[in-house]
Amino acid sequence: MTIAAIEAGGTKFVCGLLRAGGHDCSPPAVLAKTSIPTTSPEETLHAVAAFFEGQAKAHGRPDVAGIGSFGPVELKPSSPDWGRVTSTPKPGWSGADIAGFFMRSLGVAVAFDTDVNAAAYGEYLWGSARGLKDFVYLTVGTGIGGGVFSGGGLVHGLSHPELGHLRLAREADDPFPGLCPYHKDCLEGLASGPAIEARWGKPGRELPEGHPAWELEARYLARAVAAYACVLSPERVLLGGGVGMRPSLAERVAVLLGEELAGYLPALSDPVRLAAYVARPGLGADAGLFGSAAIAMRMPED
Amino acid sequence: MTIAAIEAGGTKFVCGLLRAGGHDCSPPAVLAKTSIPTTSPEETLHAVAAFFEGQAKAHGRPDVAGIGSFGPVELKPSSPDWGRVTSTPKPGWSGADIAGFFMRSLGVAVAFDTDVNAAAYGEYLWGSARGLKDFVYLTVGTGIGGGVFSGGGLVHGLSHPELGHLRLAREADDPFPGLCPYHKDCLEGLASGPAIEARWGKPGRELPEGHPAWELEARYLARAVAAYACVLSPERVLLGGGVGMRPSLAERVAVLLGEELAGYLPALSDPVRLAAYVARPGLGADAGLFGSAAIAMRMPED
Repeated sequence: MTIAAIEAGGTKFVCGLLRAGGHDCSPPAVLAKTSIPTTSPEETLHAVAAFFEGQAKAHGRPDVAGIGSFGPVELKPSSPDWGRVTSTPKPGWSGADIAGFFMRSLGVAVAFDTDVNAAAYGEYLWGSARGLKDFVYLTVGTGIGGGVFSGGGLVHGLSHPELGHLRLAREADDPFPGLCPYHKDCLEGLASGPAIEARWGKPGRELPEGHPAWELEARYLARAVAAYACVLSPERVLLGGGVGMRPSLAERVAVLLGEELAGYLPALSDPVRLAAYVARPGLGADAGLFGSAAIAMRMPED
Repeated sequence: MTIAAIEAGGTKFVCGLLRAGGHDCSPPAVLAKTSIPTTSPEETLHAVAAFFEGQAKAHGRPDVAGIGSFGPVELKPSSPDWGRVTSTPKPGWSGADIAGFFMRSLGVAVAFDTDVNAAAYGEYLWGSARGLKDFVYLTVGTGIGGGVFSGGGLVHGLSHPELGHLRLAREADDPFPGLCPYHKDCLEGLASGPAIEARWGKPGRELPEGHPAWELEARYLARAVAAYACVLSPERVLLGGGVGMRPSLAERVAVLLGEELAGYLPALSDPVRLAAYVARPGLGADAGLFGSAAIAMRMPED
């Protein structure tokens, strides 16, 4: 099966033509891959379609397409707006019919979900959550969001989880007001890449190991993971994204998670279990692209 | 089908012999019902068995038993400790084999889950969550806990959700330190019945409508519901328990939930949807007993 995988991000669309073998144990082979800046829907969507068109001679046309999209998006299959971006501050993108465009231009069936749900599904099939029925994939970067697996399937519910907009108890010595335009000091407002930069005056990549920024970052992430553990009882939490995958961050989050839970959850009361509880995505930065292929190959039950 | 339904609570065991008709649209008929104080496992479990024994002549023996139990309990079917209380401060109950006792004494198959999961399942079949695939049942009383439905099934995960132990952002003008022995100011530590009594010097039932206790209570519950909405995207949240079912509390929680979300979730951005989003359990105080029957009649897939 040849798959058009599209990780539709707010800054770029990562596109791959992938070929899946006869078994599911490893991610599909990447036949061709490109990255296209997210400008207007008109320009970006056509550039993506042109990429797949250009690959047709060498590799053939895709049999199916999977799109993991930035949001908010409409996911209810029964909605006339299924596959569209709903309302976004991103100029021109409110109402953009992403799934419909590729159904027409590629002439294939399209699986469509949030970028984070797709990444979670990729991690479930081929990454650090292989075989787990209940886990959380959290990405920490420009924003904070996540995909949730529960009982062996992706959680959609009323719309989809918004893990980054969880409001947290503040650290007493953190005067930063937070920068979420809706909630100020929700997790995203306190701990996203832009929040780190606004609080410390430098982007995270310029803040060395040992800088107090990282202890505070780990503390807030541990507090969020503790909340996910109380609400969802996941078997593991994956920490992805440019900030989330920083070396030693997951390890520190696991230690502080133990403090946050204070021994309450017996299944998470020893350091060995805690250390395995917070992990990096096995597909790393490719979780989104492979995940977009994954949802096309095997759509969740609902 | 005749069902032995047992709501195994920390202060009392509510037991009913119920008869289910040929269809699922309404809860089973209650043939007999009793309440037995929770003392030692030896004494309480035998008294419960004696109750069902005593009903055998009039109504016949049960075909199956359903137990919704206080926790923490072991729910993994693969565990040798399945159906037991794990570690509890309750004298004598650590390790008590509740499910095993009734399998032997009643000689029937036993469905076993947490009291709150059972209640959630009852609400799904016959109550205020009928037909919803994603919802939360929260009970606010002596403690705070909850059952979670996601994708049409109960969430178990690593163990089971602990909705009451979610840590919240505090209200600036609330000096009460909280009374959870593990976390001090988690939701249960701030908003359970005992927390209300400790903060205001009187139990909730003596605090009149309009007392500031209720606005603070609604605020913390709204904040918790906002967290559940961000993590799980439920279609509805049911507010049960002695405190939770207080008149006008759910309505106030719904209004404050709108403030907490600040318009971020489009599906919950108008007052009409919000008002329907936080509801009382349709089975009221019987959610636990009927829910225990419900899990026996139709066990969740996993």
